[in-house]
Amino acid sequence: MRVVDLIRRKRDSQELSREEIGALIDGYTRGEIPDYQMSAFLMAAFVRGLNAAETAALTEAMLHSGQVLDFSDMPGRKVDKHSTGGVGDKTSIIIAPIVAAGGLRVPMISGRGLGHTGGTLDKLESIPGFNVNLPLAEFRRVLDECGCALIGQTAEIAPADKKIYALRDVTGTVENKSLICASIMSKKMAEGIDALVLDVKTGSGAFMKKPEDAAQLAELMVDTGRRMGKKVVALLTNMDQPLGRMAGNAMEIAESIDVLSGGGPHDLRELCLELAAWMFVLGERAKNVQEGKKLAAELIASGRAKDKFREIVRLQGGDVKVVDDPRRLPRAAHRLDIESPADGYVTSTQCEQLGIACVVLGGGREKKEDSVDPAVGLEFHKRVGAPVHRGEPLCTIHYNSEGRLDEARRLVETAYRIEPRPPASLLVLVSRVIGA
Amino acid sequence: MRVVDLIRRKRDSQELSREEIGALIDGYTRGEIPDYQMSAFLMAAFVRGLNAAETAALTEAMLHSGQVLDFSDMPGRKVDKHSTGGVGDKTSIIIAPIVAAGGLRVPMISGRGLGHTGGTLDKLESIPGFNVNLPLAEFRRVLDECGCALIGQTAEIAPADKKIYALRDVTGTVENKSLICASIMSKKMAEGIDALVLDVKTGSGAFMKKPEDAAQLAELMVDTGRRMGKKVVALLTNMDQPLGRMAGNAMEIAESIDVLSGGGPHDLRELCLELAAWMFVLGERAKNVQEGKKLAAELIASGRAKDKFREIVRLQGGDVKVVDDPRRLPRAAHRLDIESPADGYVTSTQCEQLGIACVVLGGGREKKEDSVDPAVGLEFHKRVGAPVHRGEPLCTIHYNSEGRLDEARRLVETAYRIEPRPPASLLVLVSRVIGA
Repeated sequence: MRVVDLIRRKRDSQELSREEIGALIDGYTRGEIPDYQMSAFLMAAFVRGLNAAETAALTEAMLHSGQVLDFSDMPGRKVDKHSTGGVGDKTSIIIAPIVAAGGLRVPMISGRGLGHTGGTLDKLESIPGFNVNLPLAEFRRVLDECGCALIGQTAEIAPADKKIYALRDVTGTVENKSLICASIMSKKMAEGIDALVLDVKTGSGAFMKKPEDAAQLAELMVDTGRRMGKKVVALLTNMDQPLGRMAGNAMEIAESIDVLSGGGPHDLRELCLELAAWMFVLGERAKNVQEGKKLAAELIASGRAKDKFREIVRLQGGDVKVVDDPRRLPRAAHRLDIESPADGYVTSTQCEQLGIACVVLGGGREKKEDSVDPAVGLEFHKRVGAPVHRGEPLCTIHYNSEGRLDEARRLVETAYRIEPRPPASLLVLVSRVIGA
Repeated sequence: MRVVDLIRRKRDSQELSREEIGALIDGYTRGEIPDYQMSAFLMAAFVRGLNAAETAALTEAMLHSGQVLDFSDMPGRKVDKHSTGGVGDKTSIIIAPIVAAGGLRVPMISGRGLGHTGGTLDKLESIPGFNVNLPLAEFRRVLDECGCALIGQTAEIAPADKKIYALRDVTGTVENKSLICASIMSKKMAEGIDALVLDVKTGSGAFMKKPEDAAQLAELMVDTGRRMGKKVVALLTNMDQPLGRMAGNAMEIAESIDVLSGGGPHDLRELCLELAAWMFVLGERAKNVQEGKKLAAELIASGRAKDKFREIVRLQGGDVKVVDDPRRLPRAAHRLDIESPADGYVTSTQCEQLGIACVVLGGGREKKEDSVDPAVGLEFHKRVGAPVHRGEPLCTIHYNSEGRLDEARRLVETAYRIEPRPPASLLVLVSRVIGA
């Protein structure tokens, strides 16, 4: 096999075999195939497409480029959830303790914020002392002891994905469903799980703006997971506006604790119950989604979910007092209200723009190497459909640096659309479940 | 301008501006843009295509990546010829002295053999002492003194092309008309010429197998050259069988001397007269092709073309005695006749396969670093349409190494198709002239 022949065949829309894709990923991971050949292949694959079998083969090859965890000696089903990323999406932090409290195991390997979306790891790190960089042996120990552990991708897990993702980022080959699927699923399949619930976002704050694209990605991921013997379902959920009332690392931890305490905004709580319910269904702790939601709601009401969160924070070195007193979390020095310029209704938000405003404030990363400010963020007062009066605050900016305020302010001000009449229809949070 | 944005736009079939393409080539030549980004761009351009304006912009950027020669202080029009490459194509070696003897200047920068095709430089180097690596100052001196000089691409000429060609070779982005056009024309436009005659090959021994592909490439090159203010015509010529009777470096030099001496095979002489005629037309030494052919034929008959060749060989350090006694050229130690397996007619040849047989014998390169054996090659006895008897030789293999013979023999044997009836039509050498 010559690499250039594989590139040429994909360039000419031919199908590559499982073995050929395997050899390509293997050679690249070992450093035998140079970046310039891989980037030509990625561009050919981007433009010509990979079919379901090729996507599964790519995922499998990337998965087996590193260590595949095995928790089969631990009792209980292992179930995880993955979201394709949005603004204010802190569901992982809420769901993981609920599901672990319900008797399943959640070995969760998460990502950092990139682009306009936040990342679970950055949010968790706003809890003083919380360590997301556990070695795999420690990950296993925490999972064994409390049923849940939340860490970042280690060097042992899908190294091919790490290398390929960095290359895609600079070669214009990010937004392809097969490549996205392989990147996500190779990491998730390495977690040693039995089942996976996918939250595929669509709308102005999602990577997949169009519902049909999100649905195709969801179908591809469900198909890929099942080819690898896992139970998988995907929920298509709306990201035309931020999820919940908070975007920003510490602010989202505080809101997560609200939900775990039985409060929190309605949309966020609902989505968490729904996702947790599907995890219970796939993990065979509930017969159907209704039963799963009921179980999740009970675990919140009884305080067992919050207890589980406290246990996780403790085992991962975090300041447990934060769980009962979120004021211990880092807080921004300044606040600025962005007021409605008119009477009327919020008819839409430019959700991605709100995410970018958070990044601009220092809450996210423009480049991988950037560090984040845990305290800054946005607090949303008005959702799409809400009536507003002129001068009433739409959003409060929590900021530390005056220098970053102007651009963030401009982004927030222009993200809201205020019109005299309410929008024709409200946004539906979960529009479809694929693979159920 | 971010490179990744240009890649993304080309990936999405958008047109890039002259400035954007310029910045890309500039940055790559200076080493600021890495190989992996350029290869992603090349694959996007390959699959999505570059239009005529983009192709011209790419050519111009590659041209200006290095030195552009200027011979405007030298009297006489400067005209060159370029062939897209084939088997047995030694026309440059014959035409250059004819046209220089006719009063035009021919500053010819040629290539080496790669793939199944031979290269002018390798052929010239089979003349003992002939130096194709003249520095540019010496190139100018020889051109000034005798009206013609033949050298290889120097580091000063279109360095972007050198870098991009090497990358295309290993990333499956060779066979694209715009990229081929830019590679050829950036080098030719650097020669300081006023006009250019292109010989675009089509058929089983050409890079462009289909006439329509060859015509499109020819049109693109004519258009690109004219956008840059040069006179350009392109001849579409047949390469379904080798040109002339010889393929192999020294063997082709001997055949070239035959033609310059008034002999040689009919097809080769005809094509040389036709190409030289067009050079005379573009160089304003002849009113039309008929007049140009007459002039070329006279220059051969009078011995002036051969005298000019002798002068070039002398000025470039070669053994001048070779011109009058070609037996001084390197000769292979062994010969083997490949005989016709049946009575009948030669109805076709797999011309590329014959070219590969030459490479296998050691006469060409499989990799750039390979050195070539000047003596080996193939001598063709039967052209398409010729009647043959069983046992009559079709081709003689001139070889030095027994170890290389078997594969070459198999390739030659299976390259000839012998059928009981003659082919319906014979091959037409020059099928079209584009841009006339």
